[in-house]
Amino acid sequence: MSPLSRPIATPTSLSEAERCDSADPIGHARRGFALPDGIVYLDGHSLGPPTHSARAKLQDAADNGWANGLIRSWNDASWIDLPHRLGARLARLIGAPPQDVIVTDSVSVNIFKLAAAALDLSPNRRLIVEDDDFPTDQYVAASLGAFTHTPLIRVRADETEAALRNGGVLIKSAVNYRTCAVADMRALEHAAAASGALIVWDLSHAVGVLALDLTAAGARLAVGCTYKYLNGGPGAPAFIYAQSALAQRLRTPIAGWFGHAAPFDFSSDYAPAPGVAQFAAGTPSILSCVALEGALDAFDALDMRDVEAKARALGQIWLNRAAALGLASPSSANAHARGGHISLTHAHGYEIVQALIARGIIGDFRSPDTMRFGFSPLFLSYAEVWRAFDTLAEILESQTYLDPAFAVKQRVT
Amino acid sequence: MSPLSRPIATPTSLSEAERCDSADPIGHARRGFALPDGIVYLDGHSLGPPTHSARAKLQDAADNGWANGLIRSWNDASWIDLPHRLGARLARLIGAPPQDVIVTDSVSVNIFKLAAAALDLSPNRRLIVEDDDFPTDQYVAASLGAFTHTPLIRVRADETEAALRNGGVLIKSAVNYRTCAVADMRALEHAAAASGALIVWDLSHAVGVLALDLTAAGARLAVGCTYKYLNGGPGAPAFIYAQSALAQRLRTPIAGWFGHAAPFDFSSDYAPAPGVAQFAAGTPSILSCVALEGALDAFDALDMRDVEAKARALGQIWLNRAAALGLASPSSANAHARGGHISLTHAHGYEIVQALIARGIIGDFRSPDTMRFGFSPLFLSYAEVWRAFDTLAEILESQTYLDPAFAVKQRVT
Repeated sequence: MSPLSRPIATPTSLSEAERCDSADPIGHARRGFALPDGIVYLDGHSLGPPTHSARAKLQDAADNGWANGLIRSWNDASWIDLPHRLGARLARLIGAPPQDVIVTDSVSVNIFKLAAAALDLSPNRRLIVEDDDFPTDQYVAASLGAFTHTPLIRVRADETEAALRNGGVLIKSAVNYRTCAVADMRALEHAAAASGALIVWDLSHAVGVLALDLTAAGARLAVGCTYKYLNGGPGAPAFIYAQSALAQRLRTPIAGWFGHAAPFDFSSDYAPAPGVAQFAAGTPSILSCVALEGALDAFDALDMRDVEAKARALGQIWLNRAAALGLASPSSANAHARGGHISLTHAHGYEIVQALIARGIIGDFRSPDTMRFGFSPLFLSYAEVWRAFDTLAEILESQTYLDPAFAVKQRVT
Repeated sequence: MSPLSRPIATPTSLSEAERCDSADPIGHARRGFALPDGIVYLDGHSLGPPTHSARAKLQDAADNGWANGLIRSWNDASWIDLPHRLGARLARLIGAPPQDVIVTDSVSVNIFKLAAAALDLSPNRRLIVEDDDFPTDQYVAASLGAFTHTPLIRVRADETEAALRNGGVLIKSAVNYRTCAVADMRALEHAAAASGALIVWDLSHAVGVLALDLTAAGARLAVGCTYKYLNGGPGAPAFIYAQSALAQRLRTPIAGWFGHAAPFDFSSDYAPAPGVAQFAAGTPSILSCVALEGALDAFDALDMRDVEAKARALGQIWLNRAAALGLASPSSANAHARGGHISLTHAHGYEIVQALIARGIIGDFRSPDTMRFGFSPLFLSYAEVWRAFDTLAEILESQTYLDPAFAVKQRVT
């Protein structure tokens, strides 16, 4: 248990769940969200719902910033600084200095930029990735390796620390997208520091739900997604963190004009902006950035230790009750070893998820057999999670999921 | 004059300009736009204004797609196909097959992906860029060269065709951002074909204003911006075109999960999606994409030859009247050699642009001395361009631009 973590109190009945809601220090955060009636949304780990503020800021950006301000809004609405302002607000959520984080591009592109830049500093020029990490982390590692003729080492999660002792650049999720296992950042950074290895952390399934402290863990490079627990909107732009001392020694492979020290000089010669700012590339997507800005408002008054503790308690309700029904899970029974979601495996996982959706309970499915349920603590209550599991239990007991209608494959769930 | 081009009729008085408006075959397009009162917007080459459809689609995506549909909208609102649907609509505007274009990432990132992939196919492994091309094109060429230890050849525009005869990968704008000179695509592709060189065309200042026909010109690779003449919104996502036969032989250096043949299989092994689709990387920015979708509605019923001819005629009004006042211009006096904007140079260019903005006429300034005026033909009338020049002439004659208030530098103009 990290020094940041709070103890987890897991209710064992609906009335206990209701008492947890009454005492919930972040229960008020729900009022900031627009959620449809009749839905229990257990998919915030995939696409978070909009806050009222995100919708208002988006409309303001369209009506005032774009339509009325036109080009002037780059100055007058400070669009030009938005990726840095958002970065500074994200920095608090991950325990990083405010100037070391910017919003830019996608997770995939950001992994590429950071890992490519880090390769030039690693004494042993090789890439390392875990064989059950999120696909994009594996694919980008493989394509960067192929493009630069750099060896790619594929390891199991229990081999990672040993692999780091021989140097290289590791790309690794802080929370595994399938099992929800939390990486021991501090231990891995310790191993990396000894060999000169560098780690690019993918915080996609961690940021906005865990009380991260990258500085304390010694983490120097990270990327993350903003459309999951941060609720930034579908395909919202990602972020990059690079510790300033290290960032000075890195050179981005994709030197776009927004990463220039003085982009509006229109010089032919590239001069990188200081620190992480060089990793901005093209013109930032303002409409997506303003939605993220409104999404972050929901976190402003929250202590991330409260957020983390509630997410884990909600997950523990789900996991304990699933275990009581004999359902298998790759997620740890130790709440402190988990992020914000719970995976359950079942041969009819796809159909069960569809049957739940038909009852207004939205989770997701990851091939071949994994049901994932996310416990975004800003907009979920203990009682509704308790009741949602009642519905899952009914579906399992009645075997309604065997209805052929639930077997019709959707491309995305 | 390309076979697509129409003759240009340039009015020489306000009454002739009004007659041109009466006969304008695309004059109705203005009704699709939301423009503020009292503004003549000559900056559509930098950031186009919103269409009513873009604002409506953005609001619908926020209210219905995101807030009500939540994760289900990837299926139910067909978000998953949006980058391809938008690509198919853009394809008509650039003269490419609909399946060979996708919307993804920024121009900077897309130049990197295409040029990096093209390097592996070029018999002479080197990069070529013009020394007055848009900065991001030059910077990405330089950083890709440094990252891959590939020589970078910097040429003047009049040396490019000769440089291509020795092979390599050229990154080149179809329309120069400063002079507005139109490249001879066909001649350069002819030179490239003879040596095995490849050209990555940057269509940013060409798409949406010229009647492009990439297939006829033999162009095989291109990227482009959607927030200029296409009016996609601030920082709207860019696009990539890759001719399908060539795309099969390319491998993106940034293999993100959205470029996988079956992303929702969550396989550890990367299998590229066919054709240009492999160049998708991370999750697409849906809010930005839907705004672009609404922006493209304005082009649906238009013949791009009419669009091009009107843009050039509007520019010719400006250029002829500027010449009559003795103003210098790096833009060609031959309308068929120009894109959609006119640059004028003046020692007090910055202050003149500020003085115009104060009178409601918005152009932009590019250091050190260039005033740029864009003639987006979908929302500008001949008469308002004529009258806007009257204001410029007044400002010049009265020298009101010497008021110290107009010398206060804005970071972005």
